[in-house]
Amino acid sequence: MGRATDRRGVLRIDLDAGADGRARVRRQDTLAVEEPLEIRVGPAGPGRRKPLAVTMRTPGDDLDLALGFLLTEGLIRSADDVHTAQLCAGAETPNTYNVVDVVLSPGVPEPTTDPARNFYTTSSCGVCGKASIDSVRTRSLFAVRDDPLRATAELLATLPDRLRAGQRGFDRTGGLHAAGLFSADGELVVLREDVGRHNAVDKVIGWAVRERRLPLAGQLLLVSGRASFELTQKAWMAGVPLLAAVSAPSTLAVELAEEAGMTLVGFLRGRAMNVYAGAERIVGPAG
Amino acid sequence: MGRATDRRGVLRIDLDAGADGRARVRRQDTLAVEEPLEIRVGPAGPGRRKPLAVTMRTPGDDLDLALGFLLTEGLIRSADDVHTAQLCAGAETPNTYNVVDVVLSPGVPEPTTDPARNFYTTSSCGVCGKASIDSVRTRSLFAVRDDPLRATAELLATLPDRLRAGQRGFDRTGGLHAAGLFSADGELVVLREDVGRHNAVDKVIGWAVRERRLPLAGQLLLVSGRASFELTQKAWMAGVPLLAAVSAPSTLAVELAEEAGMTLVGFLRGRAMNVYAGAERIVGPAG
Repeated sequence: MGRATDRRGVLRIDLDAGADGRARVRRQDTLAVEEPLEIRVGPAGPGRRKPLAVTMRTPGDDLDLALGFLLTEGLIRSADDVHTAQLCAGAETPNTYNVVDVVLSPGVPEPTTDPARNFYTTSSCGVCGKASIDSVRTRSLFAVRDDPLRATAELLATLPDRLRAGQRGFDRTGGLHAAGLFSADGELVVLREDVGRHNAVDKVIGWAVRERRLPLAGQLLLVSGRASFELTQKAWMAGVPLLAAVSAPSTLAVELAEEAGMTLVGFLRGRAMNVYAGAERIVGPAG
Repeated sequence: MGRATDRRGVLRIDLDAGADGRARVRRQDTLAVEEPLEIRVGPAGPGRRKPLAVTMRTPGDDLDLALGFLLTEGLIRSADDVHTAQLCAGAETPNTYNVVDVVLSPGVPEPTTDPARNFYTTSSCGVCGKASIDSVRTRSLFAVRDDPLRATAELLATLPDRLRAGQRGFDRTGGLHAAGLFSADGELVVLREDVGRHNAVDKVIGWAVRERRLPLAGQLLLVSGRASFELTQKAWMAGVPLLAAVSAPSTLAVELAEEAGMTLVGFLRGRAMNVYAGAERIVGPAG
């Protein structure tokens, strides 16, 4: 298995270290590992699997990453759609398990590999706004809007510390995003770290696919960074009713959350937060 | 033109606000705008341009984004390779200029749209490590290794504040990454902000393509977040000899910088920094 962190020599410069000879110090630093993962997908049988995507990720939980990616891209609906998923061993160093080979179950459509598949093409260049968004949109199977989850603001305020406490990689590198799935009563269900925040979310969702826990109804997903369109869409695809982010959301994340009937919380820091969509799920405080 | 920020209603919850009735407040919040940009590329003549990529970006400097993307993907070498690049007007709201249509100059090869183009395909699944990395690698035209740039640690330490001072969007939203190009004496040459850090870098590089300033020899590129493989590769493609990041680099970013002969600085904060590659370019302090 590849490692999530690795050591590298570094020159540490501290201009305030004074003239005691420690202003330039050679030392070892722990870095987040980043390596490409190629996801190959194909039907059962003797046919070749085709490369579908390469993502730059931190090694570890690669099968979950592939399953989460396939689910959030709308290519599989559950673990039943996957016949086998295997991490391919490389011939090189131990850090080179960089291909996941996915065999779809019989009857599951192969992904289209025409890159223009999602585009509304026309000879004019008037494809704007909605059509372009549609090209990156997937459709969730899950009616998040009807999810009866309620969470107190007090409980939400405790989640970043719980996430942070589980971030072993970040403590060592300062360079890993995290995504954590929490139960309605604030227990951490699963946490994943990655150099790519979308990968961290895919690893959480892929875990849920493999554990047959979808939809993630009644649960909360917290991400360590910002809430983008892509992360909001992934949460919706997995049936998560509440997405919280430590930092800012984008406009499109808010719009998608509103469309989905999902609750979107941003700037969840200290004892405060902003609720951008679905505020009816956030209980208290009075006032 | 689309706007970089927009206003949305938000429920602000502050658990420490006390019982004065301000614990839940409805207010307006400024968000970073995120919208898809479709980049279409094709040869001169009556043929259709084909969709090449959709990126989720913050509107503004979209032509530069497209040019920077094409250059850093190795599809164009300079402005001479572009016959015309135009932002297509949408029929919808003012915020929907979401297609850039690029006509290549005669003789410039069209991008391959076979998604497997970069893959080393084989019937075994032994494509690991290097081959997968190769699939996401581009080749720079510029010999960054020979760049004689030298920068003092004192000068580097001043750059984050200079970047921050130029980040109008971040001040308002907390949700925009920034990339700033600096001269060897620390003057800010150009700064761009975007919800995607790779887009911010593409916008800087695309500006340089359009202004015919490539290679960016003797100059420094500072990014507000982490230094990934992708950002390091983009810097190399533009001929930047020194990439600095406010946060952590990944292992692969360090390896690529070493291969390129590029200087890579991380955790550039306050009066300290880590130099991960190319330390010979960093002058001082004594010790």
